[in-house]
Amino acid sequence: MNEDLMQKIMGEVMKKMADAPATEAPEAKCAAKEEAEKVPCTANFTGCGLTEFVGTAIGSTIGLVIANLDAGIHEALKIDPKYRSIGIIGDRTGAGPQIFAADEAVKATNSEIVLIELPRDTEGGAGHGSLIIFGAEDVSDARRAVEVTLKELDRTFGDVYGTSAGHLEFQYTARASYALNKAFGAPIGKSFGITVGAPAAIGVLLADTAVKAANVDVVGVSTPGNGGTSYSNEVILTFSGDSGAVRQAIIAAREVGLQVLKTLDGTEPTSTTVPYI
Amino acid sequence: MNEDLMQKIMGEVMKKMADAPATEAPEAKCAAKEEAEKVPCTANFTGCGLTEFVGTAIGSTIGLVIANLDAGIHEALKIDPKYRSIGIIGDRTGAGPQIFAADEAVKATNSEIVLIELPRDTEGGAGHGSLIIFGAEDVSDARRAVEVTLKELDRTFGDVYGTSAGHLEFQYTARASYALNKAFGAPIGKSFGITVGAPAAIGVLLADTAVKAANVDVVGVSTPGNGGTSYSNEVILTFSGDSGAVRQAIIAAREVGLQVLKTLDGTEPTSTTVPYI
Amino acid sequence: MNEDLMQKIMGEVMKKMADAPATEAPEAKCAAKEEAEKVPCTANFTGCGLTEFVGTAIGSTIGLVIANLDAGIHEALKIDPKYRSIGIIGDRTGAGPQIFAADEAVKATNSEIVLIELPRDTEGGAGHGSLIIFGAEDVSDARRAVEVTLKELDRTFGDVYGTSAGHLEFQYTARASYALNKAFGAPIGKSFGITVGAPAAIGVLLADTAVKAANVDVVGVSTPGNGGTSYSNEVILTFSGDSGAVRQAIIAAREVGLQVLKTLDGTEPTSTTVPYI
Repeated sequence: MNEDLMQKIMGEVMKKMADAPATEAPEAKCAAKEEAEKVPCTANFTGCGLTEFVGTAIGSTIGLVIANLDAGIHEALKIDPKYRSIGIIGDRTGAGPQIFAADEAVKATNSEIVLIELPRDTEGGAGHGSLIIFGAEDVSDARRAVEVTLKELDRTFGDVYGTSAGHLEFQYTARASYALNKAFGAPIGKSFGITVGAPAAIGVLLADTAVKAANVDVVGVSTPGNGGTSYSNEVILTFSGDSGAVRQAIIAAREVGLQVLKTLDGTEPTSTTVPYI
Repeated sequence: MNEDLMQKIMGEVMKKMADAPATEAPEAKCAAKEEAEKVPCTANFTGCGLTEFVGTAIGSTIGLVIANLDAGIHEALKIDPKYRSIGIIGDRTGAGPQIFAADEAVKATNSEIVLIELPRDTEGGAGHGSLIIFGAEDVSDARRAVEVTLKELDRTFGDVYGTSAGHLEFQYTARASYALNKAFGAPIGKSFGITVGAPAAIGVLLADTAVKAANVDVVGVSTPGNGGTSYSNEVILTFSGDSGAVRQAIIAAREVGLQVLKTLDGTEPTSTTVPYI
Repeated sequence: MNEDLMQKIMGEVMKKMADAPATEAPEAKCAAKEEAEKVPCTANFTGCGLTEFVGTAIGSTIGLVIANLDAGIHEALKIDPKYRSIGIIGDRTGAGPQIFAADEAVKATNSEIVLIELPRDTEGGAGHGSLIIFGAEDVSDARRAVEVTLKELDRTFGDVYGTSAGHLEFQYTARASYALNKAFGAPIGKSFGITVGAPAAIGVLLADTAVKAANVDVVGVSTPGNGGTSYSNEVILTFSGDSGAVRQAIIAAREVGLQVLKTLDGTEPTSTTVPYI
């Protein structure tokens, strides 16, 4: 009963927040970001009157927020009860871009990553999507984490290259935080990168190329059957090291990957947005 | 040798049954059902001369029957030997509709559910298909279970809503039986419902909405990585309660789901057939 | 340092090999094979200047070779260190054809199978692709294993039949070797066959039909959920026996499968290349 009352109050507060000028802020910030960083920002924060809706972005990505998650669902998802509010990122295509974007969101907001899972998906392609849940004690923190993630996606999709035959993905961060630690076991605070190739054979070659090109530490190699890729047709290399070495490893792997993927269907793989590494 | 003889006899019996007017019965019943329940019945019981063929239906669903399953296959599939005959339902798209339909079949026939598995599929979508096996001591019971299932599918696809970006699914039964118990752990004899959202982020919101809208008991929440969805891009909530509460929870979740799914590609999600809840 | 030096030398040697007339040999052999066996050979060994590239073939299949696999990757993939060189086969569609082709490659070359995994894929279809890694002490053996596999694929795709609704696959070898042993537990040196049907319901019928048609020993039945199919929508029967019995079982299953698959979308399933069984 108290629970119901609290929910009603939260619902009203959320509605008020939705009506207040604050909801226009994300778009304004998106434009400012676009101007400042010369990366397009195509996240869309309109289109749905629900208070739980935050926005959509590239990769069939949706961002939602729940101010006061039901206790039964809380328990079923094994989320620490202290996080009353959750932010949710879900997508059909990506995982890497969303997780690296969520990592920026964790750094920028007062939130934690409470769940990261990789469904086998990609809208008919060889890879997977993702489900990421942020926990926060305050709903505004959860909402902000989702907003930051959505706005980072145009950048993190920059080194995703697809053709009808497969895809390549490269991600880099100068300083890994809790999302990358949870998803890939990245050492916190260190430079960290990943190479992804699909079909999986190409991923093996990328992994070998990256590690030979610079002095980096292998964190892991995920294959279709060893538990790291949810049976998707990819091999993922995760590695850390000093910033220059991680970038050098990625650049070498990317050069090889673009040549090899092209052999399957003759199509030149192109960046989904604008390369950032 | 006795085994071979028995099989030959069974084969002949099956052929006779196939020639007898009984095979026309399903279609006749289908038309009667259509008339009585105002739900279309598009199951098709013709198109293949094999005695093992029963019919096809919506969702790329096929129904088959094996009068006397080979002992080696019987053992490999770990089916109780007392069920000499099996009925088989397989599909590319659905699972929920087929399992709820199979639940009606179990109530209506002298058969048991011996296997339910969810392949990751959906013909390029975010979800899964299903493989359902009925066991029966008598082949006519196995066949009838398959027929009933195929005929129920137009109804159970009524609250399946798809767009190119994802899908929503809602199912309700006033009284759960053995298929729902085996697949989802539904308490037998109680009202039972499910909400499904894809991409998975939407499924989390549906779950929270349903549970807050009415006094229902959470049976489980399946996520891409916790074993319940075969790594498909869905979150499934299963719940029971009194009949009115289960329906109320579904109706609230459906209202939210239709608004949120639309934000991803701008398409209005529409029912696959005719909503029944 | 010594490692780097060795790699540079190997790289140079590989480049020389790539420039030498030897690289034209595969194509020449491909043509000879086509002439001799009356099976088309569409493997393509050109199109990429990288020394690691071997060729592409039907099923979105790519073949690669790494002369001296990095020690870190070696360890992460749990490959026996004595195999410095690896050959890699990866594909979006198939698994069965590639594994049966790899089995011929193992017989014909001085190489071992060190990894076989089945990603859930098929470019939107109901099945899976594969990742196969050969280990060899000498790079020329690894390369040759990949070449042989690519050239066998037109034959092994002969009894793969697809429609928009599903697929059937049949494979046969007179004498199973290490690839089939590793992937399916085939008894080495014996005749061995598989039947595959998708959606999975059809695979159950094929399994029953095959085992009833001839005196064969069931090696296993893989279903979507029992670990053998990576959650793809297939049932796979594996079996051995004397050569005539294995073929007879397959021929009976194929006859039934072609009739049943057709019922789903009305399309006549046709061979991907030319039937060989």
